[in-house]
Amino acid sequence: MTNMNVKAIALRARQAAPTLGLLSTERKNAALEAMAEAVLKNKTLILSANQKDLRSARQKGLAASLIKRLELNDAKLRGIADSILLIAKLDDPVGRVIQTVSRPNGLVIQKVRVPIGVILIIYESRPNVTADCMALCLKSGNSVILKGGSESLHSNAALYRVMRAAAVSHGVPEGALELVMSTDRAAVKTLLGLSDLIDLVIPRGGEGLIREVARISKIPVIKHTKGICHVYVDKDADLAKSEAIVVNAKAQNPAVCNAMETLLVHESVAKAFLPRAAAALRDKGVELRGCEKTRAIVPGVQKASTKDWTTEYLDLILSIRVVKNFEEAVQHIETYGSRHSDAIVTENKQAAEAFTRAVDSACVFVNASTRFADGGEFGMGAEMGISTDRLHARGPMGLEELTSYKYVVLGSGQVRK
Amino acid sequence: MTNMNVKAIALRARQAAPTLGLLSTERKNAALEAMAEAVLKNKTLILSANQKDLRSARQKGLAASLIKRLELNDAKLRGIADSILLIAKLDDPVGRVIQTVSRPNGLVIQKVRVPIGVILIIYESRPNVTADCMALCLKSGNSVILKGGSESLHSNAALYRVMRAAAVSHGVPEGALELVMSTDRAAVKTLLGLSDLIDLVIPRGGEGLIREVARISKIPVIKHTKGICHVYVDKDADLAKSEAIVVNAKAQNPAVCNAMETLLVHESVAKAFLPRAAAALRDKGVELRGCEKTRAIVPGVQKASTKDWTTEYLDLILSIRVVKNFEEAVQHIETYGSRHSDAIVTENKQAAEAFTRAVDSACVFVNASTRFADGGEFGMGAEMGISTDRLHARGPMGLEELTSYKYVVLGSGQVRK
Repeated sequence: MTNMNVKAIALRARQAAPTLGLLSTERKNAALEAMAEAVLKNKTLILSANQKDLRSARQKGLAASLIKRLELNDAKLRGIADSILLIAKLDDPVGRVIQTVSRPNGLVIQKVRVPIGVILIIYESRPNVTADCMALCLKSGNSVILKGGSESLHSNAALYRVMRAAAVSHGVPEGALELVMSTDRAAVKTLLGLSDLIDLVIPRGGEGLIREVARISKIPVIKHTKGICHVYVDKDADLAKSEAIVVNAKAQNPAVCNAMETLLVHESVAKAFLPRAAAALRDKGVELRGCEKTRAIVPGVQKASTKDWTTEYLDLILSIRVVKNFEEAVQHIETYGSRHSDAIVTENKQAAEAFTRAVDSACVFVNASTRFADGGEFGMGAEMGISTDRLHARGPMGLEELTSYKYVVLGSGQVRK
Repeated sequence: MTNMNVKAIALRARQAAPTLGLLSTERKNAALEAMAEAVLKNKTLILSANQKDLRSARQKGLAASLIKRLELNDAKLRGIADSILLIAKLDDPVGRVIQTVSRPNGLVIQKVRVPIGVILIIYESRPNVTADCMALCLKSGNSVILKGGSESLHSNAALYRVMRAAAVSHGVPEGALELVMSTDRAAVKTLLGLSDLIDLVIPRGGEGLIREVARISKIPVIKHTKGICHVYVDKDADLAKSEAIVVNAKAQNPAVCNAMETLLVHESVAKAFLPRAAAALRDKGVELRGCEKTRAIVPGVQKASTKDWTTEYLDLILSIRVVKNFEEAVQHIETYGSRHSDAIVTENKQAAEAFTRAVDSACVFVNASTRFADGGEFGMGAEMGISTDRLHARGPMGLEELTSYKYVVLGSGQVRK
């Protein structure tokens, strides 16, 4: 794919943005419903495209876990369609008045949500990301440029084509939904230089991809990097709650960014808590690695090194550290954490409040599992991912986080003195 | 200044950020009051430093307008102190709960404002920016690294030292207020690469400086670039209001970004409006440049070229274009504007609403001067500048726009199913 083609794609997206931004909620919802229907109607076409990707994945010897993520089937297509319908049902953020201020001189100043403009999504493997991103960007009034991974090229293209045709037939401007059909790395580099045409880049995938995009990009990037999440069991913790939270945070879905990677336990409850927690975790197949104090309490725990404190296992492995006090727990999180999601378990209100103030993470939990750090669980309905950045959007990103705002100032002839 | 020194400065700022972020409002306000007092108490010292800068500015033959901006005097120092005191009086954004959501499972999710972290300000000439940025960042709980222009090196350093000493004596951590005392361009380049230590860069100054910072920076930048602002006098405009707004938007302070640069007039009112507007503008010393239709109506108007539509004069010069209709006006703004601040004058509510929807600028005015695009006029009390970007902050940036947020999730033992 030549640079010219890539630029033409970005230009089409840019030119479609103003029209898309003014589409009524009704029209966008009708388009979304048609897109969901189109996914189900064109099942055979999409699944046969997916088979092509699966064949070449097997030929290339891709890992079984990756092949599983790549695979589509009836149930997954139903899930994709349901997810689009859910986005259709969410409130439209565009045009929402966030704030109104009346000034002494009679000016009325409204802060109104508007689309960001053109959003580039660079992602890997899972074809459902194609559908989610198209639906989220359309609902929030943003033109989207999709650049998926080569391993899901045919699946992405098939989903894209049927969804786009449905959207366009409902009045969505053609350029509003663009897909870069290229496995060429140069295409990505060209795209990431088009800061006059593209407003925002969201990379979704492994840490390597995300860091590389951030390094090259001339366009603002919102990163969704790793989650080294902690649960701290305080001296005043309810140990039954602690056990349930710890098991859930680690084992309910260990492959995701909001799963716990390190357990911190106050030394005054370590002897009472660690044996029961270890048993419950091992019951779920979790491998334990720990500090010396942990190993003295729980037999058979492998020794944890500094590397364990900084590793996102994304697997049934947990590192455990016994801390002297609250401050050491907070310090550990500050030093080794990734400021994603961290939890305290305590019945002590002061400790809970101190933790939520001192721990500088996107999501700070008191007496709840870190697994709740999720757009759906936060009531956003659907999410674009979980931002580990601090600007514009932090934590789960829903439709609102895909908007900017403008000030609309209503006067009656006011001039400045 | 070596790279090591620059990194040490950034590291100090980073390390001070958590402590600063937890300072109470009372302590921050007491520090701000002491800083204002220190500026007035150390008048002689600051003015004598300023004399050094003025002498070298004259030696270098700097333009009179630049020298005027650089010059401090009793009144300006009083203004600086007042501005700091004003910031002390503003509400503290840190810790403010923006939103609370109660979920069906009993989780209570609060979205709470927190500081961004470490902010680097790169600015030119006016020493009062030093004081403003120190005060705004301190109040919003952010460590600040100041990098002023070489022409105001001594003035900045003097202001910085007396203000910092006052702040530190009131419990502000030393690293929270940093100044890079260097005229070395390499220092800036090093700073702009420290994305692990610095969270945000705000360049304040000419367009050249801003574009250069954005080009080099590995840290997110919020740009405050040019304002090519328009006033569109609609067919249903009240011509008396139009005249007052047009004269104010152009002539009240032509050197600022929210001053009007291009006047658009609907052709059905051009003959009635342009002669009176031209007379009033010329009365204020404004030079007029116009399209052919304008020149046919108003004698002595110089011919405007495309270059005029894209120039931020920042001076008593105005370009004028007669447009066929509303759409042509919007199209002109879309094509040539800088999405800063644009106004419509009309008594027609539908036209007003259509304009506020269609014009994609940070501030869109109806029947008011573009000169109101200003943090103070918007009720923010003080501003860091006017963002022409779309992410994180758009339009006037006050204390709130210098914050991020985190989610605090309060549970009673919830785990995810």
